[in-house]
Amino acid sequence: MTVSPGATLRALRERKPLVHQITNYVVMNETANATLALGALPVMAHAREEVEEMVALASALVLNIGTLSSQWVEAMLVAGKAANANGVPVVLDPVGAGATRYRTETARRILDEVKVTVLRANQGEMATLVGIQAEVRGVESGAVGGEPADLARVAARNLGLVASVTGVVDHVSDGDRVIAVANGHVLLAQVTGTGCMSSAITGCFVAVKQDAALEAAAEALAAFGVAGEDAADGAKGPGSFHVGLYDALAGLDPDTLDSRARIT
Amino acid sequence: MTVSPGATLRALRERKPLVHQITNYVVMNETANATLALGALPVMAHAREEVEEMVALASALVLNIGTLSSQWVEAMLVAGKAANANGVPVVLDPVGAGATRYRTETARRILDEVKVTVLRANQGEMATLVGIQAEVRGVESGAVGGEPADLARVAARNLGLVASVTGVVDHVSDGDRVIAVANGHVLLAQVTGTGCMSSAITGCFVAVKQDAALEAAAEALAAFGVAGEDAADGAKGPGSFHVGLYDALAGLDPDTLDSRARIT
Amino acid sequence: MTVSPGATLRALRERKPLVHQITNYVVMNETANATLALGALPVMAHAREEVEEMVALASALVLNIGTLSSQWVEAMLVAGKAANANGVPVVLDPVGAGATRYRTETARRILDEVKVTVLRANQGEMATLVGIQAEVRGVESGAVGGEPADLARVAARNLGLVASVTGVVDHVSDGDRVIAVANGHVLLAQVTGTGCMSSAITGCFVAVKQDAALEAAAEALAAFGVAGEDAADGAKGPGSFHVGLYDALAGLDPDTLDSRARIT
Repeated sequence: MTVSPGATLRALRERKPLVHQITNYVVMNETANATLALGALPVMAHAREEVEEMVALASALVLNIGTLSSQWVEAMLVAGKAANANGVPVVLDPVGAGATRYRTETARRILDEVKVTVLRANQGEMATLVGIQAEVRGVESGAVGGEPADLARVAARNLGLVASVTGVVDHVSDGDRVIAVANGHVLLAQVTGTGCMSSAITGCFVAVKQDAALEAAAEALAAFGVAGEDAADGAKGPGSFHVGLYDALAGLDPDTLDSRARIT
Repeated sequence: MTVSPGATLRALRERKPLVHQITNYVVMNETANATLALGALPVMAHAREEVEEMVALASALVLNIGTLSSQWVEAMLVAGKAANANGVPVVLDPVGAGATRYRTETARRILDEVKVTVLRANQGEMATLVGIQAEVRGVESGAVGGEPADLARVAARNLGLVASVTGVVDHVSDGDRVIAVANGHVLLAQVTGTGCMSSAITGCFVAVKQDAALEAAAEALAAFGVAGEDAADGAKGPGSFHVGLYDALAGLDPDTLDSRARIT
Repeated sequence: MTVSPGATLRALRERKPLVHQITNYVVMNETANATLALGALPVMAHAREEVEEMVALASALVLNIGTLSSQWVEAMLVAGKAANANGVPVVLDPVGAGATRYRTETARRILDEVKVTVLRANQGEMATLVGIQAEVRGVESGAVGGEPADLARVAARNLGLVASVTGVVDHVSDGDRVIAVANGHVLLAQVTGTGCMSSAITGCFVAVKQDAALEAAAEALAAFGVAGEDAADGAKGPGSFHVGLYDALAGLDPDTLDSRARIT
């Protein structure tokens, strides 16, 4: 399967997949708008009473544990299992795993009970979930020993999924191959929820390329990174950069995206 | 009663009505800022313990079922009944009715137990609530048979309220008359929560023109549509359009609004 | 202890303190982004299961009662007591105290059970909490009799904390001294959550100057006010002002901040 963010973006804009997101309060508006700007349709629904029905209508499910509580954890598990039963791919963003036991255990519980297609995390969170000691400050990753490429490969192999480790350079692995993505901009770290947005966009790409989740996950990060580069152009700081990010996602050109993606 | 968005906007800015909103997590900040930019005062409160007291202080109540759960449904019912008891007009936005049973049933339950002044919905949601088969994808409206003007009239008549059906052209009806509003911009569909904003703004207008809810609801859509047209001017995409929308709401000129409104 | 917002900002950017925030749904994204733009690290966590562990990692805790419910109140009390036990300073923003009994009682309960370092409120909320009759419309302050400087001093003395009363001119007192801060811009009142942002930023400053909370609280308001002045420059309305506020917070220059602060 070839890696072509441009081709997948074109397919996404034609099909407009519905992407069901159970995510945190801080970024709900942001991930919904990023999904919409890219060309897919977001839907946010977390009630136990409706998540099974909603996810059955969707082309991907994105679970994000950024602001947890017990009802939300239950909803994520129910939705995840329904996604599995319906063949809907699942992206998990284990926000803050490693910072508190509750987050680490919740992420592990979802990984145990739900077949996750792509685990999108920063280095600290990913290391925590494969049992490597890591420093996680709140929801930010601190120091992790070792190479991120190895971390992605080990995580993918141990957890049986596509591991997508974001950082200055992103590394996506299926346990065998590792794809590195070197797009992005330093301002992405100055806006809250850009990691969550990258998970939502991973869901959008996997929705239209379900049978090649490794490639789709890498393409998503390349597309988001290129949008970040475009948004940084002319930004005066994190506020105008944040606004420009939606303009840039909507303005992504499928014809030039492949040549701008720094994928190896 | 004449239709004059300019006159109602002027009254709104003088009186600064308090508009109590029980809305979804995705758009809370957006509808609060739209309310404030327009010139009214938003207050968000959903606790069972305080909604009756809060709504008694307000000039309108806006209920929005975009991200439901059982406690929120209870709070909406309690607040709605208290609004009715205090003569406070109620606007309902049945986000996603038709997408899941839970949403459809919740919207119906609110309509059964609360006297709703204005029901503001897209075509798919409105059709669902009057028993017409419709396609609703997540929270987006799909294909609906028939004319939206007829849909507004039938909904208003069957449900005994003012029905406000938004789309490329909006149609507002009290079951007898139908007012069409042709303002707006295609970028409104690329930002999440613009439908929810139109419901919040409907609440603001009804708050100062409670005895003419049909006219107020149409005026609100005209004002919001004109702001959308202004925001599109110079926007580079959905991000800058979204920002410009608040600037445009704050900048709406009551003196020229009537001449710009495309109301028939 | 000298008052120097520039020196404290410089320390903040070097240490990047983690500021744990249990705040309302409307402004979570906003206060997280303001914290990040300033140079600190925000973390939002409200689950009973994790707040004690999270606050023990943090350098300050910010409690905000803008959208209450019983679980959140419990979490705030648990987190507040854990903060006290760990020597972590606590900032309380009693949003809407005076508007409903539930808000007033919750604010009082937190003040009773948690040792609050800084109480950051508008005049109506502060007056309510010291037992002075005040008009509070929703979450906006109405008329309050008397001088705000006296209100700050009385509140600080009666409640045994640093009282930070924001308004056209802000007044911060430890019950003995009163510091007045005259920075800011009228557009701050047209964006929802700017009061909440000022509380979050107070948390950031207190995090790095815990032994001088009076000075830190005043410095925070000066820094936020100067950022507001910068954001107003070139803003076309509340939307572009809001965006510019994050750019301005990130762009605050420690070297010139002291000379721009209007602190007396």
